[in-house]
Amino acid sequence: MRITALLLVLVTVLPGQARDVMGESPLSERAASMVKEAIRSRESHRLLASLCRSAPRRLSGSPGAAAAVEWARQEMTALGLQNVRLDPVSAPRWVRGSLCRVRVLEPGYAGHPPLAAVALGGSVPTAEGGLAAEVVEVRHSRHLRELGREGLTGRIVFFNQPFDDTLPDTFKGYAATVWQRTLGAVEAAKRGAVGVLIRSVTSMPDDVPHTGSMRYKEGVPKIPAAALSVQAAERLSDLLDAGAVRVHMEMDCRTLDPVSSANVVGEIPGREQPGEIVLIGAHLDAWDVGQGAHDDGAGVSHVLEAARLIMKSGPPPRRTVRVVLFMNEENGLAGGRAYASWYRETLDQHVLALESDRGGFAPRGFGVTPSEGYIQALKPVEAVLVKHQLGRVVAGGGGADISPLKAAGVPVMELKVQSDRYFDFHHSAKDVLEAVHPRELARGSAAVAVMAYAVAEMEAPLRRAAAEAGTK
Amino acid sequence: MRITALLLVLVTVLPGQARDVMGESPLSERAASMVKEAIRSRESHRLLASLCRSAPRRLSGSPGAAAAVEWARQEMTALGLQNVRLDPVSAPRWVRGSLCRVRVLEPGYAGHPPLAAVALGGSVPTAEGGLAAEVVEVRHSRHLRELGREGLTGRIVFFNQPFDDTLPDTFKGYAATVWQRTLGAVEAAKRGAVGVLIRSVTSMPDDVPHTGSMRYKEGVPKIPAAALSVQAAERLSDLLDAGAVRVHMEMDCRTLDPVSSANVVGEIPGREQPGEIVLIGAHLDAWDVGQGAHDDGAGVSHVLEAARLIMKSGPPPRRTVRVVLFMNEENGLAGGRAYASWYRETLDQHVLALESDRGGFAPRGFGVTPSEGYIQALKPVEAVLVKHQLGRVVAGGGGADISPLKAAGVPVMELKVQSDRYFDFHHSAKDVLEAVHPRELARGSAAVAVMAYAVAEMEAPLRRAAAEAGTK
Repeated sequence: MRITALLLVLVTVLPGQARDVMGESPLSERAASMVKEAIRSRESHRLLASLCRSAPRRLSGSPGAAAAVEWARQEMTALGLQNVRLDPVSAPRWVRGSLCRVRVLEPGYAGHPPLAAVALGGSVPTAEGGLAAEVVEVRHSRHLRELGREGLTGRIVFFNQPFDDTLPDTFKGYAATVWQRTLGAVEAAKRGAVGVLIRSVTSMPDDVPHTGSMRYKEGVPKIPAAALSVQAAERLSDLLDAGAVRVHMEMDCRTLDPVSSANVVGEIPGREQPGEIVLIGAHLDAWDVGQGAHDDGAGVSHVLEAARLIMKSGPPPRRTVRVVLFMNEENGLAGGRAYASWYRETLDQHVLALESDRGGFAPRGFGVTPSEGYIQALKPVEAVLVKHQLGRVVAGGGGADISPLKAAGVPVMELKVQSDRYFDFHHSAKDVLEAVHPRELARGSAAVAVMAYAVAEMEAPLRRAAAEAGTK
Repeated sequence: MRITALLLVLVTVLPGQARDVMGESPLSERAASMVKEAIRSRESHRLLASLCRSAPRRLSGSPGAAAAVEWARQEMTALGLQNVRLDPVSAPRWVRGSLCRVRVLEPGYAGHPPLAAVALGGSVPTAEGGLAAEVVEVRHSRHLRELGREGLTGRIVFFNQPFDDTLPDTFKGYAATVWQRTLGAVEAAKRGAVGVLIRSVTSMPDDVPHTGSMRYKEGVPKIPAAALSVQAAERLSDLLDAGAVRVHMEMDCRTLDPVSSANVVGEIPGREQPGEIVLIGAHLDAWDVGQGAHDDGAGVSHVLEAARLIMKSGPPPRRTVRVVLFMNEENGLAGGRAYASWYRETLDQHVLALESDRGGFAPRGFGVTPSEGYIQALKPVEAVLVKHQLGRVVAGGGGADISPLKAAGVPVMELKVQSDRYFDFHHSAKDVLEAVHPRELARGSAAVAVMAYAVAEMEAPLRRAAAEAGTK
């Protein structure tokens, strides 16, 4: 064992293309060790379980979010990360309250169970006693325009465009329908509507509603908005097929004053160029209806465990690996913006920003932006990923928290995972620890570790390597 | 819609390289339609649910297996397959009985719960009243040889080599440890042992035991063999660390006379070369402790639904697509052997035999044997698979049922799927309908449909195309 460890050290510190006695490249050797350790240790799962237990409800501004920040600080310290710190973020504070009830008033025959519903994040409450109005169903955005003010004034608009899960990547299906949730209230209120119900943006046709953020616009009345489960949406749609439907909705959610919170940051200082940063990040906040196990507890686990794997498997890489756990991805992006602002003087020292925010499923590689030259420059890393069945490097990636970095010209990357099941759980009460498979999660951590290590260890910084590859 | 259908017919019957008005190849067009239909219709899930309901217990020779054969005949007929027939197979009949109890006798302090155990398929029963003996733990095959006759005579051998789930493909981890189950009884009995317990060959460290087949050898005493859950195995191992352990095991399983059963076969007759066969198969029998939902209900669903997708999406391909549901994969391979024997005169007309027997998880492409030339010849199909994120074509594949065909020189292929979770369920009471994700299953069916259609429609038969690609 001692000899192996010594060899590992030797091959790791040798220049770029050196091969060890086994004929393996240093990256390949180190990756193999990290993959094995990730699965064997089950640390990814321990981290996620610990987060879900310590801070199951951690929406921005909540006591749970504060607990999550403290949890992250302690875990980073225990892990042996350096320069562990809390970078201040002013986080919005929206509270769900205790009531979100949607009932059918007409047709008035008995036996309508309440429609399973959940307030959308950011929604205003209904007036005391709730809101009763006739419902108008909208299945696509053109339909909304056709109905116009005349059709919508005084009504509750029911956005019922189904999730298209026939696309290979379920994130595409999500992207195509999520407008109902984010923009529905503004579009409806512009035309005189008094409330909004949306069909949950999910691939799972069950009776569990899915929350998520929504926006208002200055000058447009703020009307309350809630999501129905797919089954409730189907029931409501069936009733509408038969005639006029009046619904009563009542919600006591509300927005309070912003709260002081933080991004949590820790580092593996680079061996040679500590000023050059490879950022690996995820978001610490989560919607409050489940435990945020996939979204984004898995990402938190991925990046913390990736840091541990890098440290445990040998000497630190050439450049600094910085772990950032962002606050407030779900409803404001305050953490992502604060990071870009806080570190604006050193953004050009950011070699790469990589986010994991697509769940804890089996890893399928990485998407990178910009892609030209980068995919080519990352071919040696991809070869190692492929060997361990961790996926490939493809064009296009990023993440909400690192979007301000992308806008500032930092190359960005996302961990891609098998996406079939993600939107079954996303933003719902089902997004709990048990929905995450320990081995899949561990292999995701290994993938992040391999990519972060490789980019932090490359001889030329990624940007230059990509530029050179691009001109070949 | 009419015009689209007409175009589809036109482009499909045009020669090989024709492109339609959209610039898509006919294969690409047809694949898109099959993928969409597979997910939208949810037929894969309906088929699997129907099989699990109609014949949840369908081990070879059982009444459930007979029910499965009749179910398959009816489904194939309802689907509109041609030449639906039952090809006779003489199937072995092993029955589990009602008793498999493993208890710790010594150390004798109170409070040992029974060790969760399940008889291995094919095992002889214990003598009336059971068997009591001291336990010897074996962690690797070398250890077995070291212990020799002296260490093993009169003992119960406890094979406790853990599943290695650090390998990228869990099937490799399975292959590395399954010898304990298949060969353990012979190796132990050769050295005088009186019984065998194995640690379940599974990636899931819970308290559910996993069954599977085991073999005896002429001239070596037949001793009873059972599998313990991983947790039971760990408990037993802990006891052994502290000193001598005596165990009592009692099983009433037994082997009865063989039974007449069948492979179920149906076809989409080829449009131009009906004598040339693209076989797509799975096995109908399953272990009797769960519902065989992943193993191999998913495969059954994949190939039946693939046939429906091919028929629904346009005219039949050039060659015949033959769906074969094999009997007795799990404990004898009688169906696979019977098929190769029954069709021996036309084996050279088999262009390809493709099996799905790795569960209903997200598809990751196909493994093909031989690979030289074949991977190249299949590049256009792979491009379509990649477009729909259905995976790639890689070297190495087959399946137990089609192994006699492979031996006879027929090119063979297997559907590869995301394997992380397969051995959590495999051969256990957890392998039930709810363990299969409808969308993942549907996309597997689509992958099989695309590959089967493509190979059945290729201008040159696959073997010739591969030979030409191989010499380029």
